[in-house]
Amino acid sequence: MNQFEQFHLFLENADPILVVAHLYPDGDAISSTLAMGYVLRQLGKKVTMVNESPIPQKFSFLPGVEEIKLADSVSEIFPYAIALDCADAERMGSCRSLIREKAIVVNIDHHATNDRYGTINIIQPQAAATAEIIFDWVEEADFPVDRQLAACIYTGLLTDTGGFRYSNTSSKVFTQAAKLLETGIESHKIADAVLETVTMEQLQLLQTALSTLQKSEDGLVAWMDLRKQDIDRFANSHEDLDGIVNYARNIYGVDVGILFHETNDRTIKVSFRSREMVDVGNLAKSFGGGGHARAAGCSISGTLQEAHHRVLSLVQSKLKQECEV
Amino acid sequence: MNQFEQFHLFLENADPILVVAHLYPDGDAISSTLAMGYVLRQLGKKVTMVNESPIPQKFSFLPGVEEIKLADSVSEIFPYAIALDCADAERMGSCRSLIREKAIVVNIDHHATNDRYGTINIIQPQAAATAEIIFDWVEEADFPVDRQLAACIYTGLLTDTGGFRYSNTSSKVFTQAAKLLETGIESHKIADAVLETVTMEQLQLLQTALSTLQKSEDGLVAWMDLRKQDIDRFANSHEDLDGIVNYARNIYGVDVGILFHETNDRTIKVSFRSREMVDVGNLAKSFGGGGHARAAGCSISGTLQEAHHRVLSLVQSKLKQECEV
Repeated sequence: MNQFEQFHLFLENADPILVVAHLYPDGDAISSTLAMGYVLRQLGKKVTMVNESPIPQKFSFLPGVEEIKLADSVSEIFPYAIALDCADAERMGSCRSLIREKAIVVNIDHHATNDRYGTINIIQPQAAATAEIIFDWVEEADFPVDRQLAACIYTGLLTDTGGFRYSNTSSKVFTQAAKLLETGIESHKIADAVLETVTMEQLQLLQTALSTLQKSEDGLVAWMDLRKQDIDRFANSHEDLDGIVNYARNIYGVDVGILFHETNDRTIKVSFRSREMVDVGNLAKSFGGGGHARAAGCSISGTLQEAHHRVLSLVQSKLKQECEV
Repeated sequence: MNQFEQFHLFLENADPILVVAHLYPDGDAISSTLAMGYVLRQLGKKVTMVNESPIPQKFSFLPGVEEIKLADSVSEIFPYAIALDCADAERMGSCRSLIREKAIVVNIDHHATNDRYGTINIIQPQAAATAEIIFDWVEEADFPVDRQLAACIYTGLLTDTGGFRYSNTSSKVFTQAAKLLETGIESHKIADAVLETVTMEQLQLLQTALSTLQKSEDGLVAWMDLRKQDIDRFANSHEDLDGIVNYARNIYGVDVGILFHETNDRTIKVSFRSREMVDVGNLAKSFGGGGHARAAGCSISGTLQEAHHRVLSLVQSKLKQECEV
């Protein structure tokens, strides 16, 4: 029996169903929740969509998004749950407490690190997004795809591939995008809302960070700072810092881009992005952080100057090793 | 006889062939030149690829790009020419002088305004890029598509759709992209080189512009300035200013984003971008400029302050009209 067949058997009896994705939801988490919720309701199920964290404003255009509830506003405990885009059960955050102890949990995810916590596990690491797996299921089951469903799935593909720019952008992703556009969705409006639109505060934060931009003598490392007072002044949430580090990494000739930001007087959060030479996941690990080869982060006790010194000297020695190989 | 059949008849005898695109070439112009040149050479033709302007550095990864010659380095005059992505013959710039007076010219383009200056005209305004038309031809003629050709065509699709974000991003564009990826091209590296990579100077210019960012009281208009001394200090070419105006337009709630830049002591170049309320093509026209509804520009004599006053008061009155409609 393939994974979708197990899922169909589950759906024969499951009702009511909790649909949940990971906390601090990104475009794929939100879209997958909405797409799954929409199809299940079409199938006549009683569905509750939930998330631990509020939905970022830029996703407010998504049809049905206002129906995703915050965990603490739900009092029901569910016998059936579908967890989306969560590599482990902890990623659901406080929403876990809404799932009955012996509940049947369907775990649908595309993270290779998924620990298969579900009763049924549909894990496809080759998929660019959980939304891609949901679209596979929708197509296999021959459910009709209207604009509402297409807009959700498209948003998941778009965001988890970085606007079709990351290396997970497969031929299949484009084939799915082509089918979704045939429903008549206005993909340029989705891209505008999700990838282009910024707040004034984000630009002010970017401007402040760019005013501190420095590059190493060999041109391989670029870094920026954000002080606590800048963040207090301009940032509304941690999302406002998203993407700033990429500006350092994107400079012609740079391999490692770094953003140092003061979280309080004695801690500096460090974000890394790299092109191809330095494995910044390993680098972050040396400081007790984590991530993967091209994007990672860590926290360092000390002043900005101390963090600069410790991080930049390690980056330089890694680059030296790379150049010697 | 369809347009491609005429083109095939042309190709039976045409040799040598000049392949030319518009001056200040963008990704589509360059990619179309390279894709066409590549296929014609596979067919055994003697091909000269040419452009009036140097190729921007970010396209230097494209296979064969070093073979595109500058017009003034070519002394031959050609009896056959293929003009790509040129809405009128003037767009070829000085390359026109390399085409013999009674030459047979094939005009392949996707601009709706194309004036059909060719002997054979293959104009498809519904195509997102000239590269899309070339791929249609390649497929219809059943030419093999290897990585080199795919990388060129993909770059044209990618750049002319703004990274698949503009409203010209059709289902067909995605279908073509899916096929091109099947050749094994590393699309993420193309996106990185073409859409992500910036120079230190571009970021310094962006930072300077952002430091002047202002928003109207109603939040519908945002604008930035660049003074002549900033441009002299940081900009290497006019491309370095590309995209800066979008930051103003992309602010949440803003409809019109404007960049004012001093070109000399008495002239201000004004770039406009808009979301949906104001037709900035019309707006620019009032000042003797041009463009289309969502992107336009003009030049104004006077100081920055004078340009602010004249432009912002007209934008406000257009917005007032819009709101009254």
